[in-house]
Amino acid sequence: MERMVVVGGDAAGMSAASGARRLRGPGELEIVAFERSPFASYSACGIPYWIGGDVAERDSLIARTPEEHRERGIDLRTRHEVTEIDVGAQRVRSRDLVAGTETWTGFDKLVIATGARPVRPRLPGIDAPGVHGVQTLDDGQALLDALGRTAGRRAVVVGAGYIGVEMAEALLKRGFDVTVVNRGEQPMATLDPDMGLLVHEAMDALGITTVDGADVTGIPTGGDGRVRAVSTAEGEYPADVVVLGIGVEPETTLAGAAGLPLGVYGGLLTDRAMRVRGHENVWAGGDCVEVHDLVSGRERHVALGTHANKHGQVIGANVGGGYATFPGVVGTAVSKVCDLEIARTGLREKDAREVGLRFVTVTVESTSRAGYYPDAAPMTVKMLAELRTGRLLGVQIVGREGAAKRVDVAAVALTAGMTVEQMTALDLGYAPPFSPVWDPVLVAARKAAAAVRAASG
Amino acid sequence: MERMVVVGGDAAGMSAASGARRLRGPGELEIVAFERSPFASYSACGIPYWIGGDVAERDSLIARTPEEHRERGIDLRTRHEVTEIDVGAQRVRSRDLVAGTETWTGFDKLVIATGARPVRPRLPGIDAPGVHGVQTLDDGQALLDALGRTAGRRAVVVGAGYIGVEMAEALLKRGFDVTVVNRGEQPMATLDPDMGLLVHEAMDALGITTVDGADVTGIPTGGDGRVRAVSTAEGEYPADVVVLGIGVEPETTLAGAAGLPLGVYGGLLTDRAMRVRGHENVWAGGDCVEVHDLVSGRERHVALGTHANKHGQVIGANVGGGYATFPGVVGTAVSKVCDLEIARTGLREKDAREVGLRFVTVTVESTSRAGYYPDAAPMTVKMLAELRTGRLLGVQIVGREGAAKRVDVAAVALTAGMTVEQMTALDLGYAPPFSPVWDPVLVAARKAAAAVRAASG
Repeated sequence: MERMVVVGGDAAGMSAASGARRLRGPGELEIVAFERSPFASYSACGIPYWIGGDVAERDSLIARTPEEHRERGIDLRTRHEVTEIDVGAQRVRSRDLVAGTETWTGFDKLVIATGARPVRPRLPGIDAPGVHGVQTLDDGQALLDALGRTAGRRAVVVGAGYIGVEMAEALLKRGFDVTVVNRGEQPMATLDPDMGLLVHEAMDALGITTVDGADVTGIPTGGDGRVRAVSTAEGEYPADVVVLGIGVEPETTLAGAAGLPLGVYGGLLTDRAMRVRGHENVWAGGDCVEVHDLVSGRERHVALGTHANKHGQVIGANVGGGYATFPGVVGTAVSKVCDLEIARTGLREKDAREVGLRFVTVTVESTSRAGYYPDAAPMTVKMLAELRTGRLLGVQIVGREGAAKRVDVAAVALTAGMTVEQMTALDLGYAPPFSPVWDPVLVAARKAAAAVRAASG
Repeated sequence: MERMVVVGGDAAGMSAASGARRLRGPGELEIVAFERSPFASYSACGIPYWIGGDVAERDSLIARTPEEHRERGIDLRTRHEVTEIDVGAQRVRSRDLVAGTETWTGFDKLVIATGARPVRPRLPGIDAPGVHGVQTLDDGQALLDALGRTAGRRAVVVGAGYIGVEMAEALLKRGFDVTVVNRGEQPMATLDPDMGLLVHEAMDALGITTVDGADVTGIPTGGDGRVRAVSTAEGEYPADVVVLGIGVEPETTLAGAAGLPLGVYGGLLTDRAMRVRGHENVWAGGDCVEVHDLVSGRERHVALGTHANKHGQVIGANVGGGYATFPGVVGTAVSKVCDLEIARTGLREKDAREVGLRFVTVTVESTSRAGYYPDAAPMTVKMLAELRTGRLLGVQIVGREGAAKRVDVAAVALTAGMTVEQMTALDLGYAPPFSPVWDPVLVAARKAAAAVRAASG
């Protein structure tokens, strides 16, 4: 009987295992999955909301328990860490983290789903008590415990990307004074700086102090060895607790050591079927791979649960004897800080320049509902379109309720390769409680189409 | 100097006038617009929310006053009704409703934007005091006055389409006991009956009595001549006030008399530039035209402010010497009854059958946010896909907050001619406050893709 071995038991790995199991029963395919933590299939993206108190229980974040996977015929070995992949001999070495023993396990099909690891700069004090990451459920529990124990109310978040701003909200909700220390020109470097500025202003209004352009130089500790501040070239920010939200990088140490192909961001390179390039029997998915950006034509690293789930589903279908592909991403992401909604898809100005595209940009102000309808909330939509062709290149939205998911319209239009002129005619849902008579995305498309005509003439 | 004459001063007509004016100044083009009411450019779609009290003032519904149009160099003549169009002689006859005089006005370019008229079945009692339409601002004011005067608290709404269900909400908010009498099998005949049933159940839960399959036979009046009930073959429903929300039909009496081409629904037929077919200098847009359905390939009548605005914009560009087209609709519509959100796009089962398409349907239950996130609200998504090709044919959604505008993803996918298999890979915005890791539309697409494979194999 064939054996499928899965390295990493979170979204991509367990989706692959479950998908393969649906197509091939326990009599046809043995499935062994190794996971170093005690958990499988949990929502790391939900951790900030658990910390902030929106989600009461850690276990709510667990989509399926290890036992549930085992009942479905998957030999899931939690607290087992894979320490070596031997591609040639088709086997992996794993260590039982409880017993301390090591074993080799052979495979016919291998799925690498080792995820990402948080960026942890080598800084003095980075490992001091009171400095927390928020990557795993254990990290989350440790932070929650620390927040409960700390008498002080000063929290510093390092990084102002998705995790940084979500953690700023969470700490604010827990009653902390929050300072976000951010290396970039503005928060949310996944937006252009003009749109990031809107986020900065909104965070100000929420009472979150945001320090931009600040390189952290160290994390000074007190006499008790605990963190007491975050230092930058410009000054020191007192801290009773520090949360690192600097971002993640692909965890491909094992894959690299095994000689598997890695891209410029350190992620595994796969084909459309999520097979590792040049390796017939090895698949990879989730935060440890690079994905194809359909707009720029380049590979990127995007750590996002929704992609991990899609990868897992594709791998499961292919390993199970079916057929599925993951064509790539357009770079859609949504987030919020309290009632501020932030969304982006496609290319920023600098992304477009980097691949040699010339473009127009337009920015419009509109509202989530008809202006006369209660709770019509303002939103700003920025749109990029290519010169001459008028092809949509990207959209960024900052607003309040009803803003973020509007980016999906642009995500589909990018996937379809639509021009902004074509977008002006889109038949989007209209009724006063849901949209002005011209949806904000249509307003932006009209202005972008006019700008393309003016600039291309 | 050329003269542009506009018949009808609401969304399509005044958008056309304004658009042409932006391109050609008062020294190049004279613009005369005739409007029979005292108002121009108002949001008829907002009337139910004004009646219900969400919108406090009638004037909030007026996007631009007659004076504002005049200041922009448009000779807008309110309280003037066009009574004849003489296409051959290039002139229209209008009556000044105040002075009672009639005048002929010549045109070089004519825009017909006469809108729609409410369906008003010939029933005994239909013109009795207490029976109200909700098509115009004057209708709205009359109904509001009547609601204030009426001591009784029993309201009957005839019709359970968009206007009917929105008026049911409005009357409920005004403290009335509301009965909706509906000829169709379920409310919202723009949905398939299985999805309409969900609307029926939700209306029940809101305390709105919905009587389906009920043909109104008359509107009995009391001794004072006022309405006292609505009669059907099955019984009588006592009423202190009756609201007609049966739908509308194109108002093309003048156009028909002038020999202009009308379609099977009685709407004017235009080309892509919104020019009336066969007439170089006559344009038409808004609720008085039929539109091309990009999914079925047929003409339809869809009375919706968002289309009217687009038509007006296209006409304005073309009359102004620019170039724009309206390629057609995919049939997107969104609505709500209290917190119930209703959306549809593309073809229903019966529409698909009518044009000879064979298809699969799937229905899935999902939520607006990650299941563990507060206020994750259930939604039901139904999807139709063509057999063999797997092309998306339609989507219907019934749910709570966050449900309706998800239909926009399907609207763009329909426009782009995507297959449901392609849709499974769409890069839609994901974060726990905004979506489960698989967006409900993606869940439906996955199930539909599987159904297409199973049925086409």
